[in-house]
Amino acid sequence: MLNTLIIGASGYTGAELAKMVHVHPHLALAGLYVSANSVDAHKPISELHGQLKGIVDMPLQPLTDPAEIATQADIVLLATAHEVSHDLAPVFLAAGCQVFDLSGAFRVQGDDFYPQYYGFSHQHPQWLDHAVYGLAEWNGAAIAQAQLIAVPGCYPTASQLALKPLIEQGLLDGSMLPVINAVSGVSGAGRKASMTNSFCEVSLQAYGIFSHRHQPEIASHLGQDVIFTPHLGNFKRGILATITAKLAPGVTAAHVADAMQNAYPTSADPHAVRLLGEQAAKLQNVVNTCFCDIGWKIQQEHIILTSAIDNLLKGASSQAMQCINIRNGFPQLTALV
Amino acid sequence: MLNTLIIGASGYTGAELAKMVHVHPHLALAGLYVSANSVDAHKPISELHGQLKGIVDMPLQPLTDPAEIATQADIVLLATAHEVSHDLAPVFLAAGCQVFDLSGAFRVQGDDFYPQYYGFSHQHPQWLDHAVYGLAEWNGAAIAQAQLIAVPGCYPTASQLALKPLIEQGLLDGSMLPVINAVSGVSGAGRKASMTNSFCEVSLQAYGIFSHRHQPEIASHLGQDVIFTPHLGNFKRGILATITAKLAPGVTAAHVADAMQNAYPTSADPHAVRLLGEQAAKLQNVVNTCFCDIGWKIQQEHIILTSAIDNLLKGASSQAMQCINIRNGFPQLTALV
Amino acid sequence: MLNTLIIGASGYTGAELAKMVHVHPHLALAGLYVSANSVDAHKPISELHGQLKGIVDMPLQPLTDPAEIATQADIVLLATAHEVSHDLAPVFLAAGCQVFDLSGAFRVQGDDFYPQYYGFSHQHPQWLDHAVYGLAEWNGAAIAQAQLIAVPGCYPTASQLALKPLIEQGLLDGSMLPVINAVSGVSGAGRKASMTNSFCEVSLQAYGIFSHRHQPEIASHLGQDVIFTPHLGNFKRGILATITAKLAPGVTAAHVADAMQNAYPTSADPHAVRLLGEQAAKLQNVVNTCFCDIGWKIQQEHIILTSAIDNLLKGASSQAMQCINIRNGFPQLTALV
Amino acid sequence: MLNTLIIGASGYTGAELAKMVHVHPHLALAGLYVSANSVDAHKPISELHGQLKGIVDMPLQPLTDPAEIATQADIVLLATAHEVSHDLAPVFLAAGCQVFDLSGAFRVQGDDFYPQYYGFSHQHPQWLDHAVYGLAEWNGAAIAQAQLIAVPGCYPTASQLALKPLIEQGLLDGSMLPVINAVSGVSGAGRKASMTNSFCEVSLQAYGIFSHRHQPEIASHLGQDVIFTPHLGNFKRGILATITAKLAPGVTAAHVADAMQNAYPTSADPHAVRLLGEQAAKLQNVVNTCFCDIGWKIQQEHIILTSAIDNLLKGASSQAMQCINIRNGFPQLTALV
Repeated sequence: MLNTLIIGASGYTGAELAKMVHVHPHLALAGLYVSANSVDAHKPISELHGQLKGIVDMPLQPLTDPAEIATQADIVLLATAHEVSHDLAPVFLAAGCQVFDLSGAFRVQGDDFYPQYYGFSHQHPQWLDHAVYGLAEWNGAAIAQAQLIAVPGCYPTASQLALKPLIEQGLLDGSMLPVINAVSGVSGAGRKASMTNSFCEVSLQAYGIFSHRHQPEIASHLGQDVIFTPHLGNFKRGILATITAKLAPGVTAAHVADAMQNAYPTSADPHAVRLLGEQAAKLQNVVNTCFCDIGWKIQQEHIILTSAIDNLLKGASSQAMQCINIRNGFPQLTALV
Repeated sequence: MLNTLIIGASGYTGAELAKMVHVHPHLALAGLYVSANSVDAHKPISELHGQLKGIVDMPLQPLTDPAEIATQADIVLLATAHEVSHDLAPVFLAAGCQVFDLSGAFRVQGDDFYPQYYGFSHQHPQWLDHAVYGLAEWNGAAIAQAQLIAVPGCYPTASQLALKPLIEQGLLDGSMLPVINAVSGVSGAGRKASMTNSFCEVSLQAYGIFSHRHQPEIASHLGQDVIFTPHLGNFKRGILATITAKLAPGVTAAHVADAMQNAYPTSADPHAVRLLGEQAAKLQNVVNTCFCDIGWKIQQEHIILTSAIDNLLKGASSQAMQCINIRNGFPQLTALV
Repeated sequence: MLNTLIIGASGYTGAELAKMVHVHPHLALAGLYVSANSVDAHKPISELHGQLKGIVDMPLQPLTDPAEIATQADIVLLATAHEVSHDLAPVFLAAGCQVFDLSGAFRVQGDDFYPQYYGFSHQHPQWLDHAVYGLAEWNGAAIAQAQLIAVPGCYPTASQLALKPLIEQGLLDGSMLPVINAVSGVSGAGRKASMTNSFCEVSLQAYGIFSHRHQPEIASHLGQDVIFTPHLGNFKRGILATITAKLAPGVTAAHVADAMQNAYPTSADPHAVRLLGEQAAKLQNVVNTCFCDIGWKIQQEHIILTSAIDNLLKGASSQAMQCINIRNGFPQLTALV
Repeated sequence: MLNTLIIGASGYTGAELAKMVHVHPHLALAGLYVSANSVDAHKPISELHGQLKGIVDMPLQPLTDPAEIATQADIVLLATAHEVSHDLAPVFLAAGCQVFDLSGAFRVQGDDFYPQYYGFSHQHPQWLDHAVYGLAEWNGAAIAQAQLIAVPGCYPTASQLALKPLIEQGLLDGSMLPVINAVSGVSGAGRKASMTNSFCEVSLQAYGIFSHRHQPEIASHLGQDVIFTPHLGNFKRGILATITAKLAPGVTAAHVADAMQNAYPTSADPHAVRLLGEQAAKLQNVVNTCFCDIGWKIQQEHIILTSAIDNLLKGASSQAMQCINIRNGFPQLTALV
C-alpha cells in the first residue's frame, strides 16, 4: 500500500481525490491537508462535502510542516493554487515523493509564460524541465518514469484529446487556426463564494476571450496555435468542447478515423477515451465518469469535433489517478470504473 | 407624475422596481440610491442588471443625505436591509413622503419580536403602530389611507393568500396547526456572494426549521399559529407553498370554494390572485408575473393548498407597486400586466 | 458467481442495475431484456445510456420466452411495469430464481389495493403473501430468507426510513397524521417522452394530491395513516421528503435520538442510512450514492424530519442490490460504495 | 385597431404573440387558431399556457376555413409548421391581409433549398419572390412596404445581427469562413413530447452538425458562407452565438466599432440591438426581453463576437411584432418594452 497525501483537500477536486484514494486497492489515504490558516482546518472533509459522510470522514489537517509529512508519504497530490503548488512541490520532491500536481505550476515550459498568465516568476526551472505533462493517453511512457507529473488543465484535456490525433498525423491545414469553443460547468471555478459563481448570476456566457491561460497550455502541447474561447455554463460539472478545423488537402474521413483509432486503440489496459464516430459528444454521458467522449464529422475540407469530459474527473482528479496508476504499474483505470 | 425614489436599488428587487416605475404612466423615476459606501455607487443600474440596459441606465447614487432628497420625493421605496429601513423610514415619513418598505422593519407589532428575530430593538414604536401591512388583496382600504406601508415578506404572501380565506371564515379545525412547506428560488437570499448561494452548493434542502422570521410574520397576521418550513430550491425565482390543514367539522368543498371566491372576487379593478380550483399551482406560471396562483384539494377533513408566486414580484416588488397603485387611486395592477 | 438477469433494462433504473451487477464481485451479468416488441430490442444498452459505453455494451434482448431463460438464472431483477412484473415474477419464481421486483406488483398486502391504485386485480395472492418488502435496514432477517423481494417505492423509502424509528418506538401522537411533503426529480417518471416530462414544461409543482399510490404503500408498512403530497422538481435525480409530525406527550429529543441510533446503529456490516442529527438533509449529498440522509429538529411537541435519497438508487436499484447482498450473505453495500 | 389573427397559437411562440397583441395599443386580438384536428382545439390558450390565465383566456379555435376568417383580418401571424405556412400564406395574402410568417417557408430564395432542407417543393415561387426577410434592424424600408414578411429564424437572427455590420463593410477576410457556435434553449424545439426534449435526456450537446437548415438561411442573407454548429443547452429559453472570424488586412478595432455603431445607431425610434463593446453577451440579460446583445473582442487579425437573444422573442415573436410595428408605422418596440 502506498501512503498518499492530498494537499488542498477542501475543494471539489480534493473531495473527488479523497474518494478515489479511499477505494483504491493499492493506495492508503495517509492524510488530508489544507493551508495552515484555513477556516476549514480540523473539520472532517465530510462536513464540507456531505456526500463523503460515512465514506471518508478524515479531518482536514492544517499544513504546517510539509517537509515533515513528506517523510511518511509515497505519493502526494497537490490540489492547491498555482503559487502554492509551485512552492510545495519541491519540498515533497526533495523527500523522494511522487508528486502529482493538479495546478498549472509545472505544465508549460518557457520563461515568459508564468509572469504573463499566472502572475508569478517561476523559481524552479529545473523541476519545470523535469516535469512530465500528465496527458495520460499520450504521455504514458514518460509518466511511468517521472517523479513530478503536471496534470493537465480541464479545457486542455478536452481540447488536446480531440485535436492531437489529427495534428500528430499532419491532417490539419495550417491556413486556419483550429477554433475551440468550450463550455464548462461552474465547479471549474473552484469552491468559493463570488458574485461570478453566485447562483442567480450564472448564465451562459463567454469569458476570458483571447486571454485565458489554457490557450497557451493547449497551444504549447499541441505544437499548434489555436483560438480558444471558454464559456461558463449553467451546470455544475462537465466540459463540452466544440472544435472547428480545416483538413489538409486530400485528407479523407478514413484518414481521420484511422488517426483516431490508432491514437486510442482498444487495449488490454483500457484507457479513458471513447470514440463516438459521427455521433456528437453529450455532456451527461461523461459527467461522474473518468471518460472523454470524442465525436467528429467532416464536410469537404472542414471537420467539427466534439469532446466532452467531467471537468473535476478527467479534467483533474481522475486524470491524476490515471497518472498514479500508470506511474505505479496498476491498470490505468483502477479506482475509476 | 409622482416623484419616486428607490433606496437600495442595487439588489434584485431594486432592479424590478426600477423597471416598474419606469413604465408606470403616473410615476417618475426620480432617483436610485445605494448606501453611501457601496462599491456600486455611481454605476449605472444596468451595469449590475444587464437586462435593464437601454431601458433604465440611471446611476446608483450614494445615499448621503436622505433628509435632503426626501424634500423632492412623493414616494419612497425602501428595498434596504431591515436595520436600514428601520432608520430611514422615519426620515422620509417626516418629510411627508409615502413610504413603501420592503424589509421586515415594520411588518409585525410587538415588543419581543424584533430583538429575537431581527437582532435589534425597535426604536420607532409609533411608526410601527401606524404602519399598514401591505397584503394588497386584504388590506386595500387601510393601504389607501396609509403613509407607511410594510410590504409583506415573500413566504408570508404566498402562505397568507392561501390560508386567510379559510381562517377568516372559521373553516379550519384548531386541533392541528396548518403545516406550510415552501420552496424558494435562490434570489430570495438577495444579490450577494456567499457559500450558501454558490452555484455548486445549491441543492434542494430545508433551512431555518422552527426558526425562520417569516413564521411569526405569518402567524401574527393570520391570527393563527402555523408550522412553517422553508426550503431552498435549485432555481432563481419563485416560491411554491404547499399547505396542509384540517377543516372544521361540517366544512365542505363548497364552503371552501365560496370562501375563496368571496375573498378574491372578479372585479372591475382586477387584483393579483388567480384561483385554480382543484388544479395544483405550478411555479413557472407565476414567475415573471405579478400573480399568486392558488389551488386546493380536499379529502375528508383535510385540505391541501398550493400557492405560487414570484418571490421578487408578488413576494416583494410588484406587491409594493400594487400598494402604490392602491394608495394613489390607480388601477392596482398598473405597470404590472 | 450468480447469474443475474435484468428484465426491463432500457429504463433509468435498468441502466443503474446493469452497472452495479457489472462491478459486483459475485454476480455475473447474464442478460439484459426488454419487452419483445420494444423499439430498443437488440440495441446495446450503451446506445440508450451513453454513460455505459465501454463499461456495459451488452445488447437488450427481446424477452420472448421467460421460462427458458429462467433456467439459466440465479437472480432476476424486474425493472418492469407493474402489470409486467405481476405476470413475470411467478414464471421466474417457479424456476427457483430469486426475484427482486422493483415495481409495485408485490409491495402491499390486501384485496382492494391493486384495482384501485394500480388498475388491475392481483392474480397471484399466494406470492403476494410470501413476498418480503425489501426495506433493507428494517427487514433484513426476512429478506435473507425470501425468494420474492418487493423492493420499496422511492417515496416510501425516504418516508419510512425517517418515520419508522419513531413509530416503532411509539413516539408519535396519534392526534395528528404525519404530513409528508416530498419533491422528486423527473427521472422518477421513467424514461419516456411525455408533455409532463418535456423540458420546458417541468417546473416545481405538486401532483397526485390525495391520490398517489405511494400513500397506501407508506401507510400500510408504517401501520400509520399519513398525508402524503408528492411534487415534481426541476432536477433529474433525488427525492427530498420533509415530514412534520407531533410527538407523544413526554417525548424528548433524547428519546428521538435514541430511537434513531437504535434503528440505524453503527455496524460491522454498514447499512445505507446516515443520521445527520439537527442538520437538514440536502439533495446533492445523496444523489449518485446509495445513502439515505436523515435529519430532524424538535420544537415543543412537533418534529420536522428531512430525508433524502437518490430516487434511482436507494429509491430503486441500490436498494434492490442491497437486498441481493443481504439475501446472499454478501456485505450489504457490496457494489454500492 | 387592426384585427390580428394568430394561427398556430398553441405553441410557445404563439403564446408570446398572444400576450403581445393583447397589450398592443393598436392591435385587437381577433382570434387564436390551431389546426382543425388539434387536441387543443376549443381549449382556452391559458389552459395550455398557465401564465396567460386572467390575461388572455381566449379559446384556440380549429382552423377550418382560412379564407373565411381572412376576410375579417388585417394582420395574420403564422406560427405554424413550414408546410402549413407554405399552404396558408397565399390564402391570407389573397384576401389582402398582411402576413407575418414565423416559419421557414418564405425565408430563402432559390429552387434547391426547400426540397433539400425542408422536405417539400415550393409551390408559390411568386410569393417567395415578393416575401421580405424580416430582419428588423436591416430591412426596415422593405418591411414597411411588404405584404408578406418572412420572420427570420432564431439562430439566423443572432448570427446575422452580429456578422452583418462587418460583412456589409467588407471587414472580413475571405480566407477563413466565419465559425458560428450557438447554444439554444430547449424551447427552440417547440412544444411537444419527444425523447430529445425529455427532461432527463437534455444535456449540452451539438446537433445538426453541417446539416442544420439555418446554415443556408444565414449564408444566403449574409452573402457569405459560414460554418454553423448549433447546440442544445440545458435551459428553456435563449440563444448565445459565439462567432470567430478573421478580419481583412488593415482592419482595426476602430473600424469594427464604427461599423457596429453605424449599423445600430441611437435613434428616435429605438431598435432592439444593444452593443456591449468588449463585454461578452450573457444569456440572462436578454431572456424575456426583445433585445439582441452583441459584444466583440479583437486580437490581431481575429475577432470573436458574442450575440445573445431570447429565441422565442427576438428569435421569433418579438421580431414579428417589430415587423408589424414597422409595417404599420408604429414605434418599432411598441408592446415590446
